[in-house]
Amino acid sequence: MKEQTIQLNLSPERKPKPQSEELGFGKIFTDHMFIMDYTEGQGWHDPRIVPYQPISLDPACMIFHYGQTVFEGLKAYLTEDNRVLLFRPQKNFERLNRSNERLCIPPVDEEFALEALKQLISVEKDWIPNAEGTSLYIRPFIISTEPFLGVAPSSRYKFMIILSPVGAYYKEGIHPVKILVESEFVRAVAGGTGEAKTAGNYASSLKAQEIADGKGYTQVLWLDGLEKKYIEEVGSMNVFFKINGEIVTPALNGSILEGVTRNSVIELLKSWDLPVTERRLAMEEIREAYKSGQLEEAFGTGTAAVISPIGELLWNDEKMIINEGTTGPIAKKLYSTITGIQNGKEQDPFNWTVEVEQYAATK
Amino acid sequence: MKEQTIQLNLSPERKPKPQSEELGFGKIFTDHMFIMDYTEGQGWHDPRIVPYQPISLDPACMIFHYGQTVFEGLKAYLTEDNRVLLFRPQKNFERLNRSNERLCIPPVDEEFALEALKQLISVEKDWIPNAEGTSLYIRPFIISTEPFLGVAPSSRYKFMIILSPVGAYYKEGIHPVKILVESEFVRAVAGGTGEAKTAGNYASSLKAQEIADGKGYTQVLWLDGLEKKYIEEVGSMNVFFKINGEIVTPALNGSILEGVTRNSVIELLKSWDLPVTERRLAMEEIREAYKSGQLEEAFGTGTAAVISPIGELLWNDEKMIINEGTTGPIAKKLYSTITGIQNGKEQDPFNWTVEVEQYAATK
Repeated sequence: MKEQTIQLNLSPERKPKPQSEELGFGKIFTDHMFIMDYTEGQGWHDPRIVPYQPISLDPACMIFHYGQTVFEGLKAYLTEDNRVLLFRPQKNFERLNRSNERLCIPPVDEEFALEALKQLISVEKDWIPNAEGTSLYIRPFIISTEPFLGVAPSSRYKFMIILSPVGAYYKEGIHPVKILVESEFVRAVAGGTGEAKTAGNYASSLKAQEIADGKGYTQVLWLDGLEKKYIEEVGSMNVFFKINGEIVTPALNGSILEGVTRNSVIELLKSWDLPVTERRLAMEEIREAYKSGQLEEAFGTGTAAVISPIGELLWNDEKMIINEGTTGPIAKKLYSTITGIQNGKEQDPFNWTVEVEQYAATK
Repeated sequence: MKEQTIQLNLSPERKPKPQSEELGFGKIFTDHMFIMDYTEGQGWHDPRIVPYQPISLDPACMIFHYGQTVFEGLKAYLTEDNRVLLFRPQKNFERLNRSNERLCIPPVDEEFALEALKQLISVEKDWIPNAEGTSLYIRPFIISTEPFLGVAPSSRYKFMIILSPVGAYYKEGIHPVKILVESEFVRAVAGGTGEAKTAGNYASSLKAQEIADGKGYTQVLWLDGLEKKYIEEVGSMNVFFKINGEIVTPALNGSILEGVTRNSVIELLKSWDLPVTERRLAMEEIREAYKSGQLEEAFGTGTAAVISPIGELLWNDEKMIINEGTTGPIAKKLYSTITGIQNGKEQDPFNWTVEVEQYAATK
């Protein structure tokens, strides 16, 4: 696979670039995309960078019926000295293959996928916005394309990477959000697909999110599917709480997504000699910490928002205002450190960033 | 919506019809399909019957990323006197709307959807095979088509119906299958999407199915996601057991799909004055019944297979041979009665079948 050459078919026309204030999240796409195909017996083949365009699929393709699909999300950042940085991209392709394993999708060569991403970004460098908080969001994904209505793994797939210049994920930016603790719907359960990045987990979350929206809450906090006692995730982010000085995040249990930002936050906190613990965390413990004045901070972590402070939790009818509804010092420091490493303004002691060189052929 | 006219755009060319022995399941599609679009603010619009063809979608369409989609499955049958019968199609469109509700997809007009299906089938009448055990499989489905990477309900959808002439779903036909009781993976949990007919449930089942295949088993039997004690479904079918004269099927609990065949089986058994019970059913109860010689029959029920007798269950390392590995009398009678009603050879005391008239415009 690594030996394969990526064919370049560049678009003669380029779309106008948006102003940074028009960006939003995931609505504008660049001029090109990467695509390769998988055919049983042949493996992954025909890697190519082509103009961004609709794909044509038989209506019986399995992706439309049985949801055999995985995706990833990461970002590219433009530094002040005009270099392009990726943040821990190997972790995303490792996780893509873990998701593939769970969904019975053939693995991709992680090094080749990263190489393909670098070439695509090199083509699209002018699309990376440079205003504060902006970046180029990267969406690798795999869809099953065999036209067959039997419930079985597909014999054909497409692996694609599309790019979207983005502003901040949450309209509120780094300001705290209000979170509804979900007591009826369930996102995932051990033995299900919760630790894979696959479409069904997100489809199943829409209903609870819609109800939360209607009540004026930005996201839901998911409890475990078995007892609805233990904290799992917030919306599509991992979640951290600071309780009486200890920073706690739910331990990976098979139904929680292993976030790259989550892992980075844990490593950073350890490097700062702050007490950070991965363990089972009951919602009741949060409530008691709140009652006794020991719930000091709460925040979500994810690629889209990086750090999303939580200013309020609603659990049944009980409202908990955290840190007086303002962004706490740990959340602030994590946000500025991680975004600083990402855009090259801060030292990168962990060698997390990967620079994308300009490929001669791609201009 | 009901007032809308369905536009007909018939194909000038027709594909050759397959021989009945070539049919298989869900691999061959007819000459036409039904499609209509949903746009926020406008509702469902532009219903049309067009040549079967690939659909062209932006790679950012939500169906590829977040799995917001639902489907149905039912069949059309050709009678000996050349009439076309559907089996309880209203139930499928009712369930489609229940699935829509769970997945935050706007409802369709059930009467209009049935009318669209009838017109499509009228166009494709020559595709309905007439050999024993064959039928025209009908796949209505809805996919989310807004090109947006935010996790939120889509503002655009496509509702489509495609048709596939089918033979028997299981290669074994009405012969008993071997089933592996799944102890690691989970299909669904209450609060999740188990009672909706949506892609993610099927994607999440592939891994367990692959493992069962490798061990020589046709399907898996799913236990509940909470305690892994109670029986839920078999593969993509509902399941019944005859224990010491009582016919038992797991009660609908929020994570079990409400099968049309399941419901028909219950009504038939009641009409025959046989004791049938919907209740919680522990796998341990099945094991004890087996040990004491009281496990008399077991079978799955679903649109694709109708009745699928179970000849063997493997639970951990314990093998249970049911009814000496042969099809039991209840399964046989149900199969012949239901398929007889479906293809017009038996009386239809419940008025389950709906005849499709030939539309003048569709030839």
